[in-house]
Amino acid sequence: MGIITLLTDFGLRDHFVAAMKGVMLSVNPELTLVDISHSVPPQDIFGGAFTLGQAWSLFPPKTIHLAVVDPGVGAARKALAASAGGHFFVAPDNGILTWVMEEQPDFAAFEISAEHYFRKPVSATFHGRDIFAPIAAWISRGIPLEQLGPALTSPVRLKIPVPKKVREGVIQAAILAVDQFGNLITNLKPSDVPPASKIILSSQREVAIFHKTYGEGKPGEMFVVPGSTGYLEIAVKDGSAASLLNLRIGAPIGVVPV
Amino acid sequence: MGIITLLTDFGLRDHFVAAMKGVMLSVNPELTLVDISHSVPPQDIFGGAFTLGQAWSLFPPKTIHLAVVDPGVGAARKALAASAGGHFFVAPDNGILTWVMEEQPDFAAFEISAEHYFRKPVSATFHGRDIFAPIAAWISRGIPLEQLGPALTSPVRLKIPVPKKVREGVIQAAILAVDQFGNLITNLKPSDVPPASKIILSSQREVAIFHKTYGEGKPGEMFVVPGSTGYLEIAVKDGSAASLLNLRIGAPIGVVPV
Amino acid sequence: MGIITLLTDFGLRDHFVAAMKGVMLSVNPELTLVDISHSVPPQDIFGGAFTLGQAWSLFPPKTIHLAVVDPGVGAARKALAASAGGHFFVAPDNGILTWVMEEQPDFAAFEISAEHYFRKPVSATFHGRDIFAPIAAWISRGIPLEQLGPALTSPVRLKIPVPKKVREGVIQAAILAVDQFGNLITNLKPSDVPPASKIILSSQREVAIFHKTYGEGKPGEMFVVPGSTGYLEIAVKDGSAASLLNLRIGAPIGVVPV
Repeated sequence: MGIITLLTDFGLRDHFVAAMKGVMLSVNPELTLVDISHSVPPQDIFGGAFTLGQAWSLFPPKTIHLAVVDPGVGAARKALAASAGGHFFVAPDNGILTWVMEEQPDFAAFEISAEHYFRKPVSATFHGRDIFAPIAAWISRGIPLEQLGPALTSPVRLKIPVPKKVREGVIQAAILAVDQFGNLITNLKPSDVPPASKIILSSQREVAIFHKTYGEGKPGEMFVVPGSTGYLEIAVKDGSAASLLNLRIGAPIGVVPV
Repeated sequence: MGIITLLTDFGLRDHFVAAMKGVMLSVNPELTLVDISHSVPPQDIFGGAFTLGQAWSLFPPKTIHLAVVDPGVGAARKALAASAGGHFFVAPDNGILTWVMEEQPDFAAFEISAEHYFRKPVSATFHGRDIFAPIAAWISRGIPLEQLGPALTSPVRLKIPVPKKVREGVIQAAILAVDQFGNLITNLKPSDVPPASKIILSSQREVAIFHKTYGEGKPGEMFVVPGSTGYLEIAVKDGSAASLLNLRIGAPIGVVPV
Repeated sequence: MGIITLLTDFGLRDHFVAAMKGVMLSVNPELTLVDISHSVPPQDIFGGAFTLGQAWSLFPPKTIHLAVVDPGVGAARKALAASAGGHFFVAPDNGILTWVMEEQPDFAAFEISAEHYFRKPVSATFHGRDIFAPIAAWISRGIPLEQLGPALTSPVRLKIPVPKKVREGVIQAAILAVDQFGNLITNLKPSDVPPASKIILSSQREVAIFHKTYGEGKPGEMFVVPGSTGYLEIAVKDGSAASLLNLRIGAPIGVVPV
């Protein structure tokens, strides 16, 4: 038994994802494999980290999460296996596990160096197939992380922008993610925003309408809604806030009194 | 054991589908999860209902079908669990099960109200993760539908357009669905169309060529073919009938003698 | 138990793939189903053959590979079940198994004619659901291939272009595949190319930069890299070589001394 989730930027057209699944099933044919996403924008480590952060903890304890967004493949970046919150993680050491680290103080990582678990020969361009997939499958068979390599004391961690109170009622915030429907996910929790506030999106645009659900919006209306991620989102009913506002991940926004 | 199928309009880029799968596997780690589609056009309940209608009965008895196309999430629409034809269904009460109801006289629905099975807190925007997924997983563990809530006597059912005989040899019909290749699926069965008929598609366009397979068409030719859904389809060899004709779901067509 | 992989050009929007999976699980509910790809370009048998060729042997022995890219559905092409390298294959007899045949001298095929295993009635347009899926599932239950029909002595095999040495240091080669990122996969292995060579891509374009990984490229740079397929690839850092060069599968290229 054992569950392994997969998150990559490999897309769904080519053989890349199936190659990893074949390698894993060859090590452990009893696995349950679950895709989180293979449509992370190419090389978007931060976006992949956010998506993984939204999904991993919903799986049962002992689930192994394999995350391969790996622009540094073949270069000096390390490969890691980690445990946190009762789950396991296998990934390049490039920040893709940032959200896991942020939320789990028991995060413990090891640098993968036990080459006898690798698929040989190791391609310089596809460590997903040759290193990460077999390591994840061997973990599902009970190999302790300590046997995969030495402890990794300072894994790479990206900076997640946090809201900053400038003065009473005025908060600097940012766009954290954009979902595929064009909803802008902010780094604001509902409790961050005082009553009678509005959100400044640019020098030209602001939004002062707050709804409880997407369904409450009028056609074309832009509004704020508490998203299922726990963060406030900027949405446009039957439209894309991302396209309308031309805001990207990291873009600054502000909260001010109405 | 247990099989759960998933049909949504959530797309494959974000964490939404994986979130539901994680929740289900946390309730029942033995599940077999099968995607029907996550690319139902956003909020297209009728389209989702058609796709589900083509797939569900091919699965083994006792399969649970989870269908979340849910523009009314967080508003007044009910949530339902149902049985029909030896299968189970979990969905918003918005017509997404129309084809199942149409074909299965034993369709029996219950309004989901047993909150102790929900994931807490329940997001106002993602009942797929917090209500529908856990309910589906609990059904796989043997909870009887009666324990989920009271009987739902009049579940929402969409109108499926049916061919109407105007006079001998003349039939009003309609486009029921458009597949991803642009084939137009009509509501006509092969037996509805008398010999020596043609199909009027618009004031400008008609088609009188009938083939048995797509392969028989000449390049660029428009023709009628009995689709695998049981309905007649309008196809263009190596092209898209939907683009060429600019016809949408529900568009009227007619059968007349040649 | 049993693993079945699926490769088709059916896309992920409609019910086609789920229909096949439902049929298979109805025959054998214990199956593990793994998608290789459903985004093979429509009717691209050669492209599908390449993708399958990259993935199948990574799965465990006895895996059954179901490959349905089938422009000839309903016409005269045969249906086959085959064994090779300890794996099983179910597909139309149109060349989709070319790479398997190329690599596995023990390839043995049978023409599927045992209609009692088919789903009835057999649609003229969807043999994936009605013939190939049930046959694959019955093989997973242990039916010997010999019981599916007579031996097929000359299965269709596509021509894979091979590098041709014109004179010392000069090689005619070709583009074998294009991946979804626009990398051009050549038919050259690293050992085919002498030191101090460059690759001629067209009358206007050549490339003399060789890297070990994608990461070594400078932004916008075009270079050659040993791909994970075992073949050399032409890549453009942060771009698409296929778009830049407008080269297609089969396009001739050349190796010459610098």
